[in-house]
Amino acid sequence: MWLIDTSELVKKLKATGATRVALQFPEGLKRDAAGVASSLRDAGFFVVISGDPCYGACDLATGLLEMVEQVVHFGHSPLDDTPCIIYDPYRMDIDTEVLGIAIPYLSSIDIGLVTTVQHTHMVPVITKYLASRGITCHSAHGGTRAPNPGQVLGCSYGAARDCHNDEILFVGTGLFHPLGVQLSTGARVIALDPYCRTVEVVSAERFLRRRFALIEVAKKAKNFGIILTLKSGQKRQQLAERLAMMSKDAFIVAVHEVSPDELLNLGFSCYVNTACPRLAYDDQERFPVPVISPQEFEIVCGSRTFEDYQIDEIT
Amino acid sequence: MWLIDTSELVKKLKATGATRVALQFPEGLKRDAAGVASSLRDAGFFVVISGDPCYGACDLATGLLEMVEQVVHFGHSPLDDTPCIIYDPYRMDIDTEVLGIAIPYLSSIDIGLVTTVQHTHMVPVITKYLASRGITCHSAHGGTRAPNPGQVLGCSYGAARDCHNDEILFVGTGLFHPLGVQLSTGARVIALDPYCRTVEVVSAERFLRRRFALIEVAKKAKNFGIILTLKSGQKRQQLAERLAMMSKDAFIVAVHEVSPDELLNLGFSCYVNTACPRLAYDDQERFPVPVISPQEFEIVCGSRTFEDYQIDEIT
Repeated sequence: MWLIDTSELVKKLKATGATRVALQFPEGLKRDAAGVASSLRDAGFFVVISGDPCYGACDLATGLLEMVEQVVHFGHSPLDDTPCIIYDPYRMDIDTEVLGIAIPYLSSIDIGLVTTVQHTHMVPVITKYLASRGITCHSAHGGTRAPNPGQVLGCSYGAARDCHNDEILFVGTGLFHPLGVQLSTGARVIALDPYCRTVEVVSAERFLRRRFALIEVAKKAKNFGIILTLKSGQKRQQLAERLAMMSKDAFIVAVHEVSPDELLNLGFSCYVNTACPRLAYDDQERFPVPVISPQEFEIVCGSRTFEDYQIDEIT
Repeated sequence: MWLIDTSELVKKLKATGATRVALQFPEGLKRDAAGVASSLRDAGFFVVISGDPCYGACDLATGLLEMVEQVVHFGHSPLDDTPCIIYDPYRMDIDTEVLGIAIPYLSSIDIGLVTTVQHTHMVPVITKYLASRGITCHSAHGGTRAPNPGQVLGCSYGAARDCHNDEILFVGTGLFHPLGVQLSTGARVIALDPYCRTVEVVSAERFLRRRFALIEVAKKAKNFGIILTLKSGQKRQQLAERLAMMSKDAFIVAVHEVSPDELLNLGFSCYVNTACPRLAYDDQERFPVPVISPQEFEIVCGSRTFEDYQIDEIT
């Protein structure tokens, strides 16, 4: 069952005057859909649940606004000012004591601090805890896609760059975000997983080796599908059109969801991803052929060198 | 490489004045996408390929009309008069000699004749061949969703019903269509696969037994997700809203594509499919829980008896 009090949400929705609402949950919270829908229906609303995959506020269920008056988007903070969307971010506290295990890994007492959306409310708490241990933390605003201080997204590392530190502490799960922080800043990055209670000094070397190998395979491709998603906050049409003009063998492939089966059916020997950057980096194993980033395609086409490797961000 | 002369298509497109076009192929023709796109680009068009799954003209890539002026939809005939769509149906000839193997299975010399879209141009040829063997064939128009005489769709059997025969010959592949013909007409149905050169007298018994078992499982479900697709020709919103009102434990789940992973994540213990009818019937094995038809849900809710079992059609 959903932990947030739906009575607050009911009040917000009633204030809009809406009687028909849609609910959109990220994958990890989808199980709460039936419970939240039931509460809202009991409160008098007509409710539709979005059953499409959702990995961020870059993927708003705006299509449902044909059927309803408001969409409630759970789990993420706003990327833009799309109307008729109510955000209900998901907050996960961190036990500050776990921060102690990261301290021996720090080489500086003046560091940058970044995290992901579910923990950004903890930034002041983390900063205070580390200050009590003699460490000064800097958090920056990452721009409109990441509205909270210290917030990084898998497609946006402005908050890491803008703290201007040579050493950055990332608090959160997984290695994708800290890897992006490392590649986009060049800083020394310490990744603390507050749940597994593990610390790692991030190295991009293995990642870059894998990407280099993939680029070499892509150079032999017969043709290229330039993936363009139709999702609200991931649709980079200008970029896709520019990339498609870089090779006579490149064609734009427009999709709602990037699916390995569809890529296989279309039969291109390489794809270039202009949708969520993580698709090219994280999901390579799911795909039948190389899926490379826009910057990697520039390397394939000879308009960028591997020395100028850049991580893909949506700006 | 695409077998249809793209020069004809180029002429049609130029006649519309379009310079930006999108191409949409069903799964079996997707491999031709790069070749057709290349031809059209050489002819001066800006081309986008739709990379989403496509199983019929019920699923037009109208979303791409934000980016292009015309969508070319390959492989299917029109279901409706959506503007800015050019249809390029796929035609597959049949060796008429193969019809001979079906004749011993016929119990009448006055039969109905139905087939699927890629063979409807053969209806006059088949009729003539069977007439030469003393058999009279009747073909009917199936309504607006199936504009060709004798054409049935997986969601529309009007052409079978409207020939008013007690015996119907289905020419085509697979058993889903002839099963639908049998269930929707009650006629004796002979299915001839012109490629495998096999003939079968269709029996719905095993199908009905499986559906009965599924309904029994569905009766024990804790809750129901009423699947509503957003695809142009499959969106049955009124039906979904009516079904959702039949149980306090039923909620509308709106999707672009029906995906087993998403159904699993949402965690409903049964789904009711108002999208393409074949999903519930053909794809049951892909799904983690029962996926039943609207009519089957009525049986679960007690507002229809199993004796009144009806195959789901989109009208």
